[in-house]
Amino acid sequence: MARSLTILGATGSIGRSTAEVVVAQRDAFQVEAVVGGHDARALAEMAKRLGARFAALADEGAAAELREALAGTGIGSGAGRSAVLEAVDRPADIVLAAISGTAGLEPTHAALKPGRCIALANKESLVCAGAAFMADARRLGVEITPVDSEHNALDHALAAGRNKDVEKAVITASGGPFRTWTREQIAGANAKQASAHPVWSMGSKINIDSATLMNKGLELIEAHHLFDLEPERLDVLVHPEAIVHGLVQWRDGAVTAGLALPDMKVPIANALHDEVRLFMDLPRLDLAAISRLTFERPDEVRFPCLSLAKAALQAGGALPTILNAANEIAVEAYMAGQIGFYAISELVEEVCSTYPGSGNVPATVTEALVIDGEARALARRLVPAKHV
Amino acid sequence: MARSLTILGATGSIGRSTAEVVVAQRDAFQVEAVVGGHDARALAEMAKRLGARFAALADEGAAAELREALAGTGIGSGAGRSAVLEAVDRPADIVLAAISGTAGLEPTHAALKPGRCIALANKESLVCAGAAFMADARRLGVEITPVDSEHNALDHALAAGRNKDVEKAVITASGGPFRTWTREQIAGANAKQASAHPVWSMGSKINIDSATLMNKGLELIEAHHLFDLEPERLDVLVHPEAIVHGLVQWRDGAVTAGLALPDMKVPIANALHDEVRLFMDLPRLDLAAISRLTFERPDEVRFPCLSLAKAALQAGGALPTILNAANEIAVEAYMAGQIGFYAISELVEEVCSTYPGSGNVPATVTEALVIDGEARALARRLVPAKHV
Repeated sequence: MARSLTILGATGSIGRSTAEVVVAQRDAFQVEAVVGGHDARALAEMAKRLGARFAALADEGAAAELREALAGTGIGSGAGRSAVLEAVDRPADIVLAAISGTAGLEPTHAALKPGRCIALANKESLVCAGAAFMADARRLGVEITPVDSEHNALDHALAAGRNKDVEKAVITASGGPFRTWTREQIAGANAKQASAHPVWSMGSKINIDSATLMNKGLELIEAHHLFDLEPERLDVLVHPEAIVHGLVQWRDGAVTAGLALPDMKVPIANALHDEVRLFMDLPRLDLAAISRLTFERPDEVRFPCLSLAKAALQAGGALPTILNAANEIAVEAYMAGQIGFYAISELVEEVCSTYPGSGNVPATVTEALVIDGEARALARRLVPAKHV
Repeated sequence: MARSLTILGATGSIGRSTAEVVVAQRDAFQVEAVVGGHDARALAEMAKRLGARFAALADEGAAAELREALAGTGIGSGAGRSAVLEAVDRPADIVLAAISGTAGLEPTHAALKPGRCIALANKESLVCAGAAFMADARRLGVEITPVDSEHNALDHALAAGRNKDVEKAVITASGGPFRTWTREQIAGANAKQASAHPVWSMGSKINIDSATLMNKGLELIEAHHLFDLEPERLDVLVHPEAIVHGLVQWRDGAVTAGLALPDMKVPIANALHDEVRLFMDLPRLDLAAISRLTFERPDEVRFPCLSLAKAALQAGGALPTILNAANEIAVEAYMAGQIGFYAISELVEEVCSTYPGSGNVPATVTEALVIDGEARALARRLVPAKHV
């Protein structure tokens, strides 16, 4: 039976992979709406290709261009915040939420509607406002299926037992481009070097997060909210081949793992049709051909961002929100050449320790966004004091 | 809640590991009966240690010794076939069926009773009489949970999706002691060399089966019956570290795998309490410490038994029954120094191709046992023609 689907962040990397899945599985989906940021032409193309009923752009200025590009197709369109929320409001069984960054939080949160399933790729919904977001999802009976390969792997591995029998849920990290570099070498690395991700091709901010391992720290925070697992039951393992994405260690000593070749279409297909697995015409994992998988412990001395994220998760309150906001500003500054690699973690640490009133968990998404804004402002003020 | 448990094959290797699990989890089990083969003293010790209500030995001649050893304990006892069946008949939620060889088939089959769970370690129930055994289990509503580490791993991995979405279920093989030997070297190997299993410590017959890879062939036949998967959806992968025991490749390209340190207590605990995972105080799998896992394709030229088993599974009818019977006789002859290593596969192949009327699936366990006996007799007649 076809499920109706709305795609938020349709023109981004996850959105484009989602379109591939939909095209490969025409009968499984009826696309209701597609939502993009600024690129009217790309969004119109996708709306036509997927046979969507409505297309919305966040950028109000591109309204006319979008309307023109869709003229005569019968596909409705709109631009600006209200158009995005209109797209979200349209009836859909599943919403794939892949608008990146804090900008994705409001529409993703607005997409929580009774009986719906949210295929979640917007990290900020959980990292910045996890408790409030999940409480609303539970209250509304919304099922959240994770799109991240690590969380998707865990989601399926967790099917092999009960939550209370989980001793440890482990997400893997490729280790990033600096896995084998010394601390001294890393300290002098520029943003271009940090962006050279060994396995995945992603956006540039997330590439830097992979290089610092902050990405894995944020994923631990996500896993905490998604799977209702305390910080003590979560861990990270470095696995350069990026084939094993997540592992669950049970209290009887057995381990269930989720593996896949690194292709986002696999977890996307998975998140869109949770119980049913769609056929995907992709290369199959051939372990004999790969021949070996390697594993190592993450080094929190060379990668202090992981340890900061773990500490924020452990301390709770608003610290994950603050950590995430400070990290975004720090990464921006690093990418602009304003600060050095290890100033990212220094800046995050400083914002976390000096932000006043970090003790309380943000009770609503709005409250989380206010704290996010304040933490960003604080981080921005601290940037000039750091060295390149 | 304590589950009542009867252990068939209590004094064997699996039985002793099961006793360890029960002792570690006193509150989870009430042991109803223990059944052994010949060793009255060992069985009596175990019955006392586990607080069993009844102990039965297959060996009728040891009745007095068992009675004496249990005098004053209040534990009932008996010896011989009827005592074994009496033990099986006593009420128990779970029967752990670990009598090895064809001798285990009758009591294991007798243990199928409505509402019961059978934790199955007796290979012959599935290899020799799989279709009839599983049909009876289904008819009686008996749940079969596999004790073999490979099938146990698959059982849990299969929880991550539906049977019809399984593209391939793969069991791993350590590769045995001859994994890196040439065919010429293997041809000259004696039974002592073949018994040096690199990972597991098992009985001697099963060690030879590991060296020939017949063990994996038989496990494919078991998996076929246990999980209702056609031969085309089953495969073997060599994995010398024996950490990953089974993998399920789904039609979306994702893979779910079951891992554990090689300790039979893990799958036993698992098979005894299917949904609930018992806490086991065992070393945890530490992939960073192990550092690497390797995989390779099995070589059916050096290990023709695997290819014979696959062919028997594919052809169906009574061939798996015949293959298994011929293999037992061939391994016996090899262990006695009567035939060489590659005469095992030659003998199995000859019996499979010359046994008359192999086309029909044995409709009952009794019919399977008759074919088993005939195939053994045929194999025995062929032994003298083979060379050492």
